[in-house]
This record gives sequence, structure tokens and C-alpha cells, in this order.
Amino acid sequence: MHVLRGGHVESIHLGHAAVVDASGRLLSFAGEPHLSIFPRSSFKPFQALPLVESGAFLRSGLGHDALALIAGSHSGTDAHAALALSILERAGADETALACGTHPPFDEATAAALRARGEAPGPLRHNCSGKHAGMILLARALGAPIEGYLEPDHPVQRAIFTRFAELVGEPWSDGTPAIDGCSAPTPRMPLTTLARAFAMLAAGCDSSGRATPALAEIRDAMRAHPVQVAGEGRLDTQLMRASPRLVAKVGAEAVHATGVVDTSMGIAVKVADGATRALAPAVVRLLIEAGALDAPSRAALGQVGDETLKNHAGIEVGAIRGVVRLRRDLP
Amino acid sequence: MHVLRGGHVESIHLGHAAVVDASGRLLSFAGEPHLSIFPRSSFKPFQALPLVESGAFLRSGLGHDALALIAGSHSGTDAHAALALSILERAGADETALACGTHPPFDEATAAALRARGEAPGPLRHNCSGKHAGMILLARALGAPIEGYLEPDHPVQRAIFTRFAELVGEPWSDGTPAIDGCSAPTPRMPLTTLARAFAMLAAGCDSSGRATPALAEIRDAMRAHPVQVAGEGRLDTQLMRASPRLVAKVGAEAVHATGVVDTSMGIAVKVADGATRALAPAVVRLLIEAGALDAPSRAALGQVGDETLKNHAGIEVGAIRGVVRLRRDLP
Repeated sequence: MHVLRGGHVESIHLGHAAVVDASGRLLSFAGEPHLSIFPRSSFKPFQALPLVESGAFLRSGLGHDALALIAGSHSGTDAHAALALSILERAGADETALACGTHPPFDEATAAALRARGEAPGPLRHNCSGKHAGMILLARALGAPIEGYLEPDHPVQRAIFTRFAELVGEPWSDGTPAIDGCSAPTPRMPLTTLARAFAMLAAGCDSSGRATPALAEIRDAMRAHPVQVAGEGRLDTQLMRASPRLVAKVGAEAVHATGVVDTSMGIAVKVADGATRALAPAVVRLLIEAGALDAPSRAALGQVGDETLKNHAGIEVGAIRGVVRLRRDLP
Repeated sequence: MHVLRGGHVESIHLGHAAVVDASGRLLSFAGEPHLSIFPRSSFKPFQALPLVESGAFLRSGLGHDALALIAGSHSGTDAHAALALSILERAGADETALACGTHPPFDEATAAALRARGEAPGPLRHNCSGKHAGMILLARALGAPIEGYLEPDHPVQRAIFTRFAELVGEPWSDGTPAIDGCSAPTPRMPLTTLARAFAMLAAGCDSSGRATPALAEIRDAMRAHPVQVAGEGRLDTQLMRASPRLVAKVGAEAVHATGVVDTSMGIAVKVADGATRALAPAVVRLLIEAGALDAPSRAALGQVGDETLKNHAGIEVGAIRGVVRLRRDLP
């Protein structure tokens, strides 16, 4: 991705991309498609899988908006925080059970409102509070203590990692997980594995092609409630609103994965330096190159992925342009 | 530069570096030392040169702390803002003359104090307000209107660009300047030219070896008043406090240049993707590799350039490490 100033390249963001089908075949790529990466929050749809398969989500009576929030990285609006709290309540818990820490809401208007009334953001505002609430609900379903739900050997985390290994049916992890921004265990895997997992999410099946209804349910919850997966003005919400074909999830340090529902294709990208500003230009360009974004959907995205840079005085000084060339030979 | 999570590389920042002597000889390098880059704020010591050489700075009666502010990117503290205003007053102007726009002060305590009292930051808080005040003082000295002082063909800008061309005595510009974050014209030049300019700044001479006292004065003002060049907790202030050998200046999009006074060496680096988080690890490692930072000075820097990453819950999750290998063969 090129960061331009006055028409000249000022900075460059390199990236890696993998496009695969549900059988794991690499259709096209850029950079190093087998690079080991941390999916970070793009792992969330799969962290939600044991909760749905346990039947606990159905028994909770929660709606699919809550499931989208569990699989999402929300903006910390009042609505997002209230929805996260409603999940905790089904587990007989409240926000004091959340071990995710806190940060100011991504939603700027909400952050400004909190500041204006001198309110420190609580853990419900953390973009991962839905995921954590889902983990706490799973702990209850498993008869496990809520305390310690983020420990790698807690039944919740064991269920998540074991199920994901079964799902992808290929060696993928390279050792003990690291710690995520929200303190949850976070795995490392080849970019191709992340892409393949999203192909399975799109297809609603596992690596052997067996139907996996819980995965299809998570996929459809995300597509039906894109505002719970991210928030207004954010990439995943915009992508899923622009195209009914897509299920999309960002991760920190500029990771992104997309499943294309009608073709069961999985597309994953990592901006090598982790820069968020390069992600929308990279993803939109990549989806076009991979044939996952048709002209009407691109048009619906408007300026997304085609950023203009303005300075403090509001003068346009440059732009960020997505530059993606997919190769189809073997890496 | 490696961004680590749990001991594994999560993201990588590539960079380019050039180490030259005052004659322009390339002593060592990394990446592409002749790459054209925008020096951005690392150009400020040279933007101050015509003001000093015109005699207007001496006549103003301002101290060398003000000269350091003119050549610096300050943190917008009350002291910084007051010093910038004092420069404007010598030009018979006030902050309404500043065309730099505004942003919240870099200094977090100052930014919090402004927010707490509901005060919108004015242009004096902009990190470039010292430079702009110096340009306005030069406009007065040249008998030119203050209005339009940022236009590329205004006498102030013509004086700056013409003088820099004379100083470096080599072809360096590749066309019309772009627009900086503060709306000033901002040139593009090879990384080697920026490094050489800092070798000259360190030596206080021009490209033919002729003494350039105004350049030496700017150099010594920066070294004597490092807190005016940046601010508490910021790289240039820390570097110049840690070592009396160095004159150092950062630029936006992760550019940095250092002059080594006792050896008249110039060192410039550009992190390719423009990431500020990689800059201190890159600069500190580069200065060590180039022999510009001895052990006591490195010790005085403490944790600077050796960053630990913590998550929202305060848990240590990773680190950023400077990785620099200088080559001495021809690029």
C-alpha cells in the first residue's frame, strides 16, 4: 500500500495475502502466504464455536445480534455495552467478571460523551467484551469456574483450541499461545490456515466437508448484524453491508480475513508492519483482485479503501492507495 | 525492527539508513540509502538558517531557547506556547498570524489540562508553532508581507529553499515541494542528502567546508535546549540529554536525522512504513552500530529504544526491538 504526499510515495506498507478454497487449495497469493501470523480478533468467530455447539447459546434465549457481538470487535457504544451486559446476565454475572481490561470506546462520539461526563470507561466498553461475555457463558455451560477463564488450561480455552484444531484438521499451532490485547490466549498460525478457516466459515462446513451448522449460524449472525461485529464507520460493518456475499473480521496489527459465502472462498491478509491505516485500502483492493467484490458492492463502499490524507488545517496533502497483485503460481 | 508478541515476530518495520561524512562520502548504509524521502520536520534546522543569517534573530534579542524552539517540534506545553508567542511578539504579531492549524498538545498532561478546562488547543500548541513564528519573524526582516508566508513563492520560502540548495551544493530536489502537516512547503530529497545536511550541521560548515557560523549557532542552541526541540519523554530531548556529541531531529512518517558533532558524521533513517513506534528502537540501534552512541550515553537513555508492549490490562505481551545491520560496500 502506498502512502502518497503531493503525488510522491512517502511511506510503503508491505503485505501478505492468501486466497484459498474450503479444501485448503491455494488459489492465489501475494508475499508469503504461509507466513505464521497472529490472527488476533479475526479468530473470534471460531472462539464462539464451542459456545454455540454446546447448546448454551440457544438455551440462553439471546438473539443473533448477541452472537454477532460475541464474534465481533465492537465500538463500545451504549448499545454495544448493554448487549454485552445482557450476555453476562444470562451467565448470572456482571461486568466485574470481565478480565479484558478497558480502553476508551472506538466510537468517537461515545468516547467524547464519557469524557464530557467524567466517566471512566468500564470493561463493557472494551471491543472484546462480547467475546469475553461469551466465554463466561461457556464457562457456566461447562460447569467450570468463571475465575481464571482466560488461563490457557481453563476448560473454556481448552474447548476453543481443541475445537479449532478439529475443525481445520491440519497442523497449525506452533507452541503455546501468546497473550492478546484483551489478555485472552491468542494463537499463531499460517496465513493460509486463517484463510481456510474463513472458507469453512463461509461454507458452514469443516475441513472434511462435513456440515457444521454452528459455524453457519455464526456466519449468518455476523452477516445479519454487521453493526455488532464492528460499528458505524468501521471496515467489517461497511463490507458486510455493501455485500451479502461476505463475512469479514479484522484483527489487531492489521490482520483481516473474509469468507465469500457463494463461492466458499477464504481470503486473509496481514499488513507486515501492522499498520491499521493500510488495512482498508489493502482489503478492498485484495477483494476486488480475488473476484470477491463486484462493481455494485464496490460502489456501495464509497470512499472506503480509498483514503485521502488531510493535515491539521484540513488541507488535502496526500492519499493511501491499495496496491495488490495476486500471483497464481506456486509460492 | 521486530514487533514481538510472546517471543514471536508479529509485525516487521523495514527501514533505510545512510551514514555520511561532511564531504558527502557514504560511510555505511542499510536498505536503499539514496531513496528519495520527505524529511518533514527534520528539515527544521535548515528552515531556521536564513533567519539567523539575516541577522534578524540576533536583533530580536531572543535567547537560544527560542532558536531551539524554531528548529524543533515541541510538545505544546504552556512554556512552549509562551515561548512561541514571544517570538511572534518580536515580529509585532500574535497567534492569529500562525497558519499551521492546530492539534492537541503532544504533552499528555497539558492535553488533559486543556480538556479538563474545556479549552480548545490554539495554533501555539501545534508542534510547529516555533518554526512558523520564526518564518513570520523572517518575513518582517525581509520586508515581506506576513500574509501568504507559506506560499512556495513567498520570499520566506524562497529564501529557505535557495539557501538549502547553496548549503548542500548538490542536486537534491525533485520538483515542487509537497505540503507538510503544518501546511508549509516540504521538500523531498535523497536520504543521503539529509544525512549530509546533518553532517554539515554537526560540523557547522557548508558542502565546500566553509565555516557557516549560523549553522553552528542553530546546532548549539538545539544541544543547549533539548527540551525546546521536542519535550519531556520524547526522543530528541532524550538523545541530546544523553550525549553532548549529538544534534538530533525527528520528522513525521518516521524520519530521523542525527549529526555527530565531534566526528562531523551525519546519520539519517527512514522507517519505510512511517511507523513512529519503530523509530526510537531504529535510531538507538543505528547510532550504536554507527559508533555514535557510547556505552555511558546508551545507559543514560535507559529504556529508550527498548520498548515493552503492555495490553489494556497492563500485562506485558511483547516488545519492539531495533535490528540494524550496516553495510560498508557500495549500495
